[in-house]
Amino acid sequence: MTTKYHNVYVEDAYTVCGNYENDGPLTKYFDKKYEKDLYFGEKSWEKAEVHLLKEANNNLLKKNKLKEEDIDLLISGDLQNQIAASDYMARDFNIPFVGIFEACATLGEGLLLGSTFVESKMAKKVMVSTSSHNMVAEKQFRNPTEYGTPKPKTATFTATGAVSVLLTNNKSKVKVESATIGKVVDLGVTDVNHMGAVMAPAAGDVIYNHLKDTKRDLSYYDLIVTGDLGVYGKEILRDYMMTKYNLELGSNYDDCGVLLYDREKQPVFAGASGPVSSGLTVFGYIYKEMLKGTFKKVLVVPTGAVFSPTFTFQKESIPSMANAISLEAE
Amino acid sequence: MTTKYHNVYVEDAYTVCGNYENDGPLTKYFDKKYEKDLYFGEKSWEKAEVHLLKEANNNLLKKNKLKEEDIDLLISGDLQNQIAASDYMARDFNIPFVGIFEACATLGEGLLLGSTFVESKMAKKVMVSTSSHNMVAEKQFRNPTEYGTPKPKTATFTATGAVSVLLTNNKSKVKVESATIGKVVDLGVTDVNHMGAVMAPAAGDVIYNHLKDTKRDLSYYDLIVTGDLGVYGKEILRDYMMTKYNLELGSNYDDCGVLLYDREKQPVFAGASGPVSSGLTVFGYIYKEMLKGTFKKVLVVPTGAVFSPTFTFQKESIPSMANAISLEAE
Repeated sequence: MTTKYHNVYVEDAYTVCGNYENDGPLTKYFDKKYEKDLYFGEKSWEKAEVHLLKEANNNLLKKNKLKEEDIDLLISGDLQNQIAASDYMARDFNIPFVGIFEACATLGEGLLLGSTFVESKMAKKVMVSTSSHNMVAEKQFRNPTEYGTPKPKTATFTATGAVSVLLTNNKSKVKVESATIGKVVDLGVTDVNHMGAVMAPAAGDVIYNHLKDTKRDLSYYDLIVTGDLGVYGKEILRDYMMTKYNLELGSNYDDCGVLLYDREKQPVFAGASGPVSSGLTVFGYIYKEMLKGTFKKVLVVPTGAVFSPTFTFQKESIPSMANAISLEAE
Repeated sequence: MTTKYHNVYVEDAYTVCGNYENDGPLTKYFDKKYEKDLYFGEKSWEKAEVHLLKEANNNLLKKNKLKEEDIDLLISGDLQNQIAASDYMARDFNIPFVGIFEACATLGEGLLLGSTFVESKMAKKVMVSTSSHNMVAEKQFRNPTEYGTPKPKTATFTATGAVSVLLTNNKSKVKVESATIGKVVDLGVTDVNHMGAVMAPAAGDVIYNHLKDTKRDLSYYDLIVTGDLGVYGKEILRDYMMTKYNLELGSNYDDCGVLLYDREKQPVFAGASGPVSSGLTVFGYIYKEMLKGTFKKVLVVPTGAVFSPTFTFQKESIPSMANAISLEAE
């Protein structure tokens, strides 16, 4: 399902990152950076993630001289069970709240829901946020880090950070031009250390449907970025698009999970994952380059494996999701 | 934030329930009932919940002679970590998907998001579904049932079932008239066996804001129902509304968690909880009585404690959410 928006703009965005992201090639684009550890002064990793999310939302308000009552709606989701980072963030904001979950595809879901409220004039200003935290994800989804379980090179590395995006009907330099809502796709992949393979078909499906619905071809966009397929998932998506749709992803295609880190120097396996993989890359790097005129038309495709350890233990394959959001600079 | 809708209708709804709900006073209103056990032919409780959710959505389509391609959007959420019941349901539906989480308040969130898409004409038909499963919730949030851990009488009993609601712009007998999006409220309650106390302030806040925004008083509605406060939470809400807002909830106020079971005969403590507590009660009993003319104006207030065991172990209090949805019969 594709919707064209006529009246939805990105008023501003704020990004906060942890030390691994600060050590990566995009660090100059982030608004706030932590360099030391992953606690940020909190007593647990889970609370550290809440800290990041609160900081992103608070600083976005402050930077734009806005108060909580100026925001009609706060939409947020994250990887924690019960989207706890978002819930514990939201209790400190006196703003109507919508909680969402599409794993690492959550940013796209938030953007399209926020755009729906703004476009329909039900809300004037909507704040969309998401976060992830490397250690929270390791603890919740994988083995205790103390075990030092080896990982294959296809594994991805959950990014630490938070992003807050302010959507508005006030004209600004970057417009949310359209969005295509994806479907849950499951081609039977069971390898929890190869999420790129899990998610590539969902990305392919939504990119194909977006192009079909908008009657565009791949070259319409200066840049098409998936969320966190990593280096191997990226190649799988290229193959999948060619094999299934006869569409050749060109040099205008990249993946946020590949862009966020320097894989030569950092211990990040196939690249970044987590909702802030696309959060930091799109609203740090890409958005700021759009403001400068480097990119005019960008298709953002946050990807998510809706990985449930419980279902994996029950021998089920891993479903995946992706949404496609078109951003256009004036 | 309150939105008035002019063009959103409930075309139909479908409910499926388990044996405890079938033994309760509302059983004649449910479309499909399971009487024997909580597995429904599946090999795990988690898959049993997926089974219910698929059945509710499939049977709603079948009953209305609709195909998947007739539905623009599927919005679903549940209590499982990673909303796994909804994800594993959605992979079998070729429909664009939006995944949501507000714990037991998820039904209200789904209804208001679906209404936003229909009202703005971005979608013509939206299917909103939710589910819960007693044993899945016990296993995930509480102690292994085999331990037989005693519970205090303020505890609630997670309902088993699924509901699917078809929202449309085709005029029907029951209209979604307006909705108020709630805020995350946390008054510091830490007792995981007293969710009614946790959630009552969120319900109070959204009911108050709904009445203020619509300039209505409590008597405007034939019926106001909260989602799953239970008998004690219900009284706490009465006290809270009186103390904080000087509003007296009258005999037109009830709670779905109280209505769903016969507490005299069933081992359900303070009453039902879970997203289908309001799902079964509202779209089994209340909706069908609205079609018959028993109720004309109903304010549905699904309530949810966004309870994270991880944060509770870290000594945090429990945040809560509620949304208010106004349904009107012709």
